[in-house]
Amino acid sequence: MVLRVGVVGGGQLARMMIAPAVELGVQLRVLAEEQGMSAALAATSVGDYRDAATVLAFAREVDVITFDHEHVPQDVLAALVDAGVAVRPGPAALGIAQDKLVMRARLSELGMPQPDWAAVRGTAELQAFLDAHEGRAVVKTPRGGYDGKGVRVVRAATEADDWFAALAEDARGGALLAEELVDFSRELAQQVARRPSGEVRVYPVVETVQRDGVCAEVIAPAPHAADRLRDVAAEVGIAIAEGLEVTGMLAVELFETTDERVLVNELAMRPHNSGHWTQDGAVTSQFEQHLRAVLDLPLGDTAPSAPWSVMVNILGGPAEDGLDARFAAAMAAHPTAKIHTYGKSPRPGRKVGHINVAGDHLDDIAYVARAAASHFSD
Amino acid sequence: MVLRVGVVGGGQLARMMIAPAVELGVQLRVLAEEQGMSAALAATSVGDYRDAATVLAFAREVDVITFDHEHVPQDVLAALVDAGVAVRPGPAALGIAQDKLVMRARLSELGMPQPDWAAVRGTAELQAFLDAHEGRAVVKTPRGGYDGKGVRVVRAATEADDWFAALAEDARGGALLAEELVDFSRELAQQVARRPSGEVRVYPVVETVQRDGVCAEVIAPAPHAADRLRDVAAEVGIAIAEGLEVTGMLAVELFETTDERVLVNELAMRPHNSGHWTQDGAVTSQFEQHLRAVLDLPLGDTAPSAPWSVMVNILGGPAEDGLDARFAAAMAAHPTAKIHTYGKSPRPGRKVGHINVAGDHLDDIAYVARAAASHFSD
Repeated sequence: MVLRVGVVGGGQLARMMIAPAVELGVQLRVLAEEQGMSAALAATSVGDYRDAATVLAFAREVDVITFDHEHVPQDVLAALVDAGVAVRPGPAALGIAQDKLVMRARLSELGMPQPDWAAVRGTAELQAFLDAHEGRAVVKTPRGGYDGKGVRVVRAATEADDWFAALAEDARGGALLAEELVDFSRELAQQVARRPSGEVRVYPVVETVQRDGVCAEVIAPAPHAADRLRDVAAEVGIAIAEGLEVTGMLAVELFETTDERVLVNELAMRPHNSGHWTQDGAVTSQFEQHLRAVLDLPLGDTAPSAPWSVMVNILGGPAEDGLDARFAAAMAAHPTAKIHTYGKSPRPGRKVGHINVAGDHLDDIAYVARAAASHFSD
Repeated sequence: MVLRVGVVGGGQLARMMIAPAVELGVQLRVLAEEQGMSAALAATSVGDYRDAATVLAFAREVDVITFDHEHVPQDVLAALVDAGVAVRPGPAALGIAQDKLVMRARLSELGMPQPDWAAVRGTAELQAFLDAHEGRAVVKTPRGGYDGKGVRVVRAATEADDWFAALAEDARGGALLAEELVDFSRELAQQVARRPSGEVRVYPVVETVQRDGVCAEVIAPAPHAADRLRDVAAEVGIAIAEGLEVTGMLAVELFETTDERVLVNELAMRPHNSGHWTQDGAVTSQFEQHLRAVLDLPLGDTAPSAPWSVMVNILGGPAEDGLDARFAAAMAAHPTAKIHTYGKSPRPGRKVGHINVAGDHLDDIAYVARAAASHFSD
């Protein structure tokens, strides 16, 4: 019997599972939100992932359900589990990824290093948090934020008034998340794979460079990282994967502080932008690893296949009209660049692809990756 | 506009173009012989490639037509060209790959090193060839042979009587190809990519190991190859690609003689089994390179991404029933092995997949590749 993986969501993460699925001989099925999405080639169904009947019908044709995103509602996940469907990661783990307040609370229980934080239910509580943290804080909406959306640095409690007002109108009520504004020297990310039977493998910790709240560039492994830093990042990643019983890929976004500690910033329970370098720079890509993990197959080697890898996102462009000319120019100038595009229409700031380059000399490959990406951006 | 490549034939070579097409963002369409073939995921049409109307209709939806195999008849190719379709490789080049007598004649014209050969029209001519070559020869049917089929070592002219009888009944008439039985120390293969605007890139020459006339193993680059040997193989590959105006990937199968000459054995004008190692061991895989070449896009870097790569074919098995257990066993024991399966039903001797391993130490990776493949082979 052919192994069959069903992915809920038709975005680029589902799309990037197609290549390893075809190579391994795993059948990939995708429940896409609409026609013509990024993962259209494998989109065997189109429907609403918030509708339990739709997702249940999709799940009947596969051996395991996994996800392109973390937005499938808990009642739909519960219906899948009740129907005996293998859901990986499971509802409990996904619930933690779906709500940043729940995440902070669970990470505190696990004793993970993280910024000071509090659930703040109104201006007074936020002011108290500001007073205790040198008059500044990061305020986050617990749900639905990504790529800098739903995140705001505030220095006065009134700067979150609109979000508190919105919460007051939300039947679920709730609170905002206030976090200490961390003095960090850089951001890191730790990829971890874990499968249901317990096997865990870590990738080398990487450096991520954000611009305007969006990941712009990843360097793997993180340069100038002391052994201790690498070990701590791996230990934190493993502790979270095991503590939260994550199955599949887990990305732990980290701050490296000026005093060389690591603090957990965000979690993603799926392949993640900070792991795209593995497609062309590691023995096992995070997309193949995710398929292996959710199928509970033994995990692949996570070693880099070159001393250095650099990933640069393609943001905004290109309009499809000029795509062939852009391909020709980028390929002619940069024959070592691995070009990945997602079949998405261009929009300012939207991630529509990325470039990977692997090699022996970091400066050289970083130049090539940036230059190649510049042919496609805007 | 999205770039669109149409592949005639739904076998594993078309299948293995899917991954790089998805990654680049090239739309791949496949005209498959039947439902459920190896490249089924991209099979947008099912029909007979010997029927010009079928292939013409398929061609209207793409920017360029290329091939999973070399069997499309010349009248169909001519109809495509007449209709203004970009056909790569073109009819003239494919005609040479379709007929081993034509190939030998053209290679002679190009001055390429090859075994002594002759077109033999009957027993008497074959006997004359045997008399001139120490009483032994390789006899080949000019058309339709592959993986050892249509190839026979003879020591008496009567051993080809059945083939001569079949030729006599063929309206096209014709001859058999008689070749000198070469004393070779090993077999090599040279991959070359060439695009219509003329750019050519060569991969490092590899060693191929055949068992029972079928490629069993490939080692890249060819071990113990002197610079001169590598240079000659590359020069021969380039001369053939340019001389025959091949577009796309060309594989030149070579004999290395005991006195360190190379002689051309066979040609394939498409991605080829001897280049599968490039999927996990070169900066640009032969499948991505083929797409770039037929689209007339600049070619990718052909450098190996590791010092050594070994590819081992999976022959015969597995029955699909036990596939998950075989995956689990192979993956558990060999986390560095890259497993490729083709979604084909098992049959004794049939190629149903392959294993690639890349790394620093040839002995180690050869062991891993063979051991991992053994989990899947009968």
